[in-house]
Amino acid sequence: ARPRVGYFYSGRSGTQLLTDSLNHIFVKDYQSIPVVVNESISVYDAIVMMFLEDVGTLFVVDKQSVLVGVLSRKDLLRASIGKQELSSIPVNVIMTRMPNITMCTKEDLMIDVAKKLIDKQIDSLPVVKETEKGYEVIGRITKTNITKAFVALADEKF
Amino acid sequence: ARPRVGYFYSGRSGTQLLTDSLNHIFVKDYQSIPVVVNESISVYDAIVMMFLEDVGTLFVVDKQSVLVGVLSRKDLLRASIGKQELSSIPVNVIMTRMPNITMCTKEDLMIDVAKKLIDKQIDSLPVVKETEKGYEVIGRITKTNITKAFVALADEKF
Repeated sequence: ARPRVGYFYSGRSGTQLLTDSLNHIFVKDYQSIPVVVNESISVYDAIVMMFLEDVGTLFVVDKQSVLVGVLSRKDLLRASIGKQELSSIPVNVIMTRMPNITMCTKEDLMIDVAKKLIDKQIDSLPVVKETEKGYEVIGRITKTNITKAFVALADEKF
Repeated sequence: ARPRVGYFYSGRSGTQLLTDSLNHIFVKDYQSIPVVVNESISVYDAIVMMFLEDVGTLFVVDKQSVLVGVLSRKDLLRASIGKQELSSIPVNVIMTRMPNITMCTKEDLMIDVAKKLIDKQIDSLPVVKETEKGYEVIGRITKTNITKAFVALADEKF
């Protein structure tokens, strides 16, 4: 007969329970709205856009709304100490372009995205959906979203 | 008599084990080296320093090495779209200054620092040590360090 004590043997250790928690934290629950710009805008306008939208990364799309590049605050700051006029350089000259963009989907785990951000030494990833034309940007994950997931671990009941 | 099964009743639930893990992750185990500049250098030189050191935040100190301000990549980018010559503006004109600087110590928990970063909407905190003259900067915590702590949760045995 089962012993009459106030608990069940779950067969799972504390480490496993922690891993279980991490395996339930998905991109779709933490992603932010992406801010996209067209590849023909100037570096100056991209910097202004970054302030208006208060983001650290802009995703660059072509006329068909397909992801073609990524612009970080660092990319824009680097351009700002160059000699060229910021309003005369298009962003596609300084952006990181496909296929060198690390991406994720909304079904990915936050822990896996966190590993990618650390491995690639980047601050942000686009959340994409594959279409016939290419990748459409449907969200973004930044280190702020990762930090929020970390804080949630302390608050939530798993 | 104690039932003969292969476990002990620890009195702690999975949630408590998770909280225990978070209560063992300290600033001192994840902090990075701080990059400090003198308050008299120009915005242009601060941007160059940010690239040379590859950091997103600079801490500004006075002649006595006491913390007087913080410069984010965002602060420097904002200055770069202004009309003034970047090499003629000293950083103390655009920096966030004391007492408006959120700080932490090396004995603080990473989970508490993560909450501060989210609450104050900032990317980085100086790790400080109080002296008679003021606060000396001994480290920094960024969202990258928080992300590394989050990744470590998945890898480590607690």
